[in-house]
Amino acid sequence: MKNPYRSVQWVAHGDAHLRLLDQTKLPNELVYLECRSVQHVWDAIKRLSVRGAPAIGIAAAYAVALSSGFNQASFRSKADALQQVDDDINHLADSRPTAVNLFWALDRIRKFIVAIKSEDLTVIRQRVLSEADKIWEEDRLMCHSIGSHGAALLAENSGVLTHCNTGGLATAEYGTALSIILTAIDQGKSIRVFADETRPLLQGARLTAWELLQHDVPCTLICDSMAAQVMREGKVQAVVVGADRITACGDAANKIGTYGVAILAKYHNIPFYVAAPSSTFDLNMQTGDSIPIEQRDSREVTCGFGLQSAPQKVDVYNPAFDVTPASLIAAIVTERGVISPVNSANVRAVLRG
Amino acid sequence: MKNPYRSVQWVAHGDAHLRLLDQTKLPNELVYLECRSVQHVWDAIKRLSVRGAPAIGIAAAYAVALSSGFNQASFRSKADALQQVDDDINHLADSRPTAVNLFWALDRIRKFIVAIKSEDLTVIRQRVLSEADKIWEEDRLMCHSIGSHGAALLAENSGVLTHCNTGGLATAEYGTALSIILTAIDQGKSIRVFADETRPLLQGARLTAWELLQHDVPCTLICDSMAAQVMREGKVQAVVVGADRITACGDAANKIGTYGVAILAKYHNIPFYVAAPSSTFDLNMQTGDSIPIEQRDSREVTCGFGLQSAPQKVDVYNPAFDVTPASLIAAIVTERGVISPVNSANVRAVLRG
Repeated sequence: MKNPYRSVQWVAHGDAHLRLLDQTKLPNELVYLECRSVQHVWDAIKRLSVRGAPAIGIAAAYAVALSSGFNQASFRSKADALQQVDDDINHLADSRPTAVNLFWALDRIRKFIVAIKSEDLTVIRQRVLSEADKIWEEDRLMCHSIGSHGAALLAENSGVLTHCNTGGLATAEYGTALSIILTAIDQGKSIRVFADETRPLLQGARLTAWELLQHDVPCTLICDSMAAQVMREGKVQAVVVGADRITACGDAANKIGTYGVAILAKYHNIPFYVAAPSSTFDLNMQTGDSIPIEQRDSREVTCGFGLQSAPQKVDVYNPAFDVTPASLIAAIVTERGVISPVNSANVRAVLRG
Repeated sequence: MKNPYRSVQWVAHGDAHLRLLDQTKLPNELVYLECRSVQHVWDAIKRLSVRGAPAIGIAAAYAVALSSGFNQASFRSKADALQQVDDDINHLADSRPTAVNLFWALDRIRKFIVAIKSEDLTVIRQRVLSEADKIWEEDRLMCHSIGSHGAALLAENSGVLTHCNTGGLATAEYGTALSIILTAIDQGKSIRVFADETRPLLQGARLTAWELLQHDVPCTLICDSMAAQVMREGKVQAVVVGADRITACGDAANKIGTYGVAILAKYHNIPFYVAAPSSTFDLNMQTGDSIPIEQRDSREVTCGFGLQSAPQKVDVYNPAFDVTPASLIAAIVTERGVISPVNSANVRAVLRG
């Protein structure tokens, strides 16, 4: 199965360019940005029009092909032109200073160009595009692999709760946690999704609900505070979420609110699953206690909806994510297999296996 | 100590009338409605300008004194005039069809008028006002009594998490759960409050945070999804919430999200307290399983902030409240004393004691 939408797509025919789905306009408008310059893509990443670590990396890789360095006519020498391409790669890396996937993808393209620099500029550009296609395809296969490994965890005719957004918008296709749900449905299972709205930025309400509607997957939107109630009513048989970072023992950092959902699942004897590519693991970090918790702008909480909904002077605590200890996680699903029970030995075994 | 604001106040000097704090305008504007007719108060209750069961009852009681029936000149007989007062009482009862306190307060005033109907209209009106004052004063004393009984539960220099709004805006003064916090502070304790914003209607962000700022109480606003994280960080030593209805065994219905907070508190070994007047108990109902859960308009979730934040077509589940089982409640604080441990025998003992 395929996504009925693409967050990042190279349009090869006619006036070739990069088409980005503007995620800031969802769910009210489906707007595509037609990017014809490096700067245009840089702006789109900066303004969060493209979001999701894999999607950002893929967009940046394609953006290199938009470098003015490939217009030989504007440069005295091929070396000058390639210098321009390199400058553009550096510039793109500046668009989101904390995005590891962005640096990884750009570094891969840079090394790729160095390796083929004796070719004609037109050939180099064409092969950069092929390499970007490859990054996209690798991510797509990885998402589907996570889905295949995880789908067996979801029972026929069950309710699945998810938090934040982990779907095709953030990746090449299908996503991570959402890929497990979509793959189970592709296998013929009947699944109903409960999507936490995910305050403060409402990625669940704005993006996950939208994606599931595009896929015609039955989806019920709830406020984060309603998760316990739907669990108590027996509507949820499994929880599946993504992860930003996972330690050697299996502690998982993810969007704020994830840890609370894991506790609620434990209390109701509902299995709690984490889905993430193996690149999410930081094996140098033993436990989640060492992960620093980033604080974000208080205005996300006090006026996140186009309206001041709290007193101006109120003190706000706005941690970007929290850490769910391995003890609350029934299994971690990666593209290399399922880690369960979650402990250091099994993390090592699956990642190295 | 007194509240630095009054949600309901009879202005006796000059052009006597009822002054209502328009809670729909908080926290951005402090606007008072100067009500000079029954209809004006009816509108204010209908539009939720006055909210909180006790505050609605008090407002309706005072509103009776605004009845045109007290203008003898407009009526052929005193009987006709008193019939108008009675019609106005019936009309006021229509403003919020589910508000038990509203019916209770109006019924009390109606019986009071019947008992003194031989008096002059001017005297009756004056005594209706005195009776409304009495309802206000009784509620005020009850709130302070809950505060006195509960304050000992809060340790010096501790963090207290609360959900929804339970303060002076909803009552005559101090409130229920908030009264415990305010009374502990009056006793000299240093307390920091964490206020859940309380989706979907944000009573925590709009009202609780505002009230605590008015009292100069240190308050940190968090999204509901952040409660687990502040608990994990050791910032919270107790949770105090209100209740809409409590059963004979101590199961407590309250604003949606309360049940989840109780589970999170249990997981972190933090005591979870419920504060409510004895009138909240429904001793004919044994357990919380029999309490029907009201569903509210999906637009509260999808566009509650003047902005559509979810797809138009998405299915929404929006329960108004949930039920916290007695097993998760360390104590229930009433104006008659503290019920702990929470079980049927102790509920009976304290309520009848």
